[in-house]
Amino acid sequence: MTETREDGFLDGRLRIVQPTRGYRAGADAVMLAAACPARAGQAVLELGCGVGVASLCLGWRVRDLRLTGIEIQPDYADLARHNAATNNIPFSVVTGDLTSPPSGVRDASFDHVIANPPFFQGGTAALDPGRAIARQEHTPLEGWIDAGLRRLLPGGTLSLIQRADRLDSVICALSGRAGAITVLPIAAREGREAGRILLTARKGGRAPLRLLAPFVMHGAARHNTDAEDLTHAAQAVLRRGEPITALFTKVS
Amino acid sequence: MTETREDGFLDGRLRIVQPTRGYRAGADAVMLAAACPARAGQAVLELGCGVGVASLCLGWRVRDLRLTGIEIQPDYADLARHNAATNNIPFSVVTGDLTSPPSGVRDASFDHVIANPPFFQGGTAALDPGRAIARQEHTPLEGWIDAGLRRLLPGGTLSLIQRADRLDSVICALSGRAGAITVLPIAAREGREAGRILLTARKGGRAPLRLLAPFVMHGAARHNTDAEDLTHAAQAVLRRGEPITALFTKVS
Repeated sequence: MTETREDGFLDGRLRIVQPTRGYRAGADAVMLAAACPARAGQAVLELGCGVGVASLCLGWRVRDLRLTGIEIQPDYADLARHNAATNNIPFSVVTGDLTSPPSGVRDASFDHVIANPPFFQGGTAALDPGRAIARQEHTPLEGWIDAGLRRLLPGGTLSLIQRADRLDSVICALSGRAGAITVLPIAAREGREAGRILLTARKGGRAPLRLLAPFVMHGAARHNTDAEDLTHAAQAVLRRGEPITALFTKVS
Repeated sequence: MTETREDGFLDGRLRIVQPTRGYRAGADAVMLAAACPARAGQAVLELGCGVGVASLCLGWRVRDLRLTGIEIQPDYADLARHNAATNNIPFSVVTGDLTSPPSGVRDASFDHVIANPPFFQGGTAALDPGRAIARQEHTPLEGWIDAGLRRLLPGGTLSLIQRADRLDSVICALSGRAGAITVLPIAAREGREAGRILLTARKGGRAPLRLLAPFVMHGAARHNTDAEDLTHAAQAVLRRGEPITALFTKVS
């Protein structure tokens, strides 16, 4: 494992140790957690959990979850376990390949599955080869969706965050197996095209697709740095760990 | 044919005779025309052209097009021919089934195809049986997309307007056959989920999907009637017949 450092998430409410180089969790993981309609007592699986940011954000927001993560890279899995302990959030992290999970995961079913699949399959290669392994970039997006749907209970929800230009691949992979697809476009600023999509679907669902109004991350385009100037909605999610209410209407 | 009346489109620039009952063309047809990146001299086919509003709006905006429409219901096709003549816009209307078009259409290829497929397949039945026939509701959405792609030249564009909840069906039908999919969500008001999508795709294209910022039809939600209070963008399209510029960036 390369050098690590501790980062704060949810305005410092979570302390997360992660590598200083290679894949680093950020706003996407927090947004993913905010999209999961888990309620106390339910079981949630995170595919490719990395150092655990999404699951730990979710565990911070919703008490008494049974949280499981699967992560192929042992060093990341170890960091996820460390981060769970440090933040005092129960989180069972299994080291393994999400497409052929070890028995503890393979035999289980979950109320919700969350995943932040790597963005660069078939496109630009990862800068850091360690990152490519960590992010399971050899598994196509369809493999992530298939793995998630297999682990879900009937009626369970799959939540994904993904680059907006993969919307077609995501939707076709879900076709016939999940319904109630709800697409939340995420735009850097008002009026911009979506950079990300946050998508939820229900296993075996039949409700029609919904295309929501965009979630806008930053305010008027007068600053040079995107780190500044979060919208109120983005502050609620990224700083206070609140759910994304637009996704919870009619969907939870 | 039932009773007809003349309606104005593009702020009265086009005079369109259409039935007073059954399927009636409206804003969707005008939006569709605004999405087509046709240039002077090109050939455009409209599938299920009805009384011709979309093609005639396009012919009004772009001069010297070779416009063809196919319409299954002879009475609607006759009205389309009448409307073309009245508005002095060359428009060749063929009576026939878009899934097995007569030779004049079957043997031709087009730079652009536009279509406003019926919205109610598999769902609520049409109120008026004549409308169901006119709108070719026995043809599934996939059949419309297949017919459109077959008639396109390589690199030609297909433009569709459709209910937003059919986004999944549209995208899966295009999968592997068209790329450069560009999705414009259409929302009644700012912050609302999309009611319609306006989608363009390029036959054989490889460019990644784009999910644009919504096109908002109406201003702040302080009026009771949606007929009032068009946004500036909607006025440009619906009253002045301008193209939808967001769709023309990088796509035309």
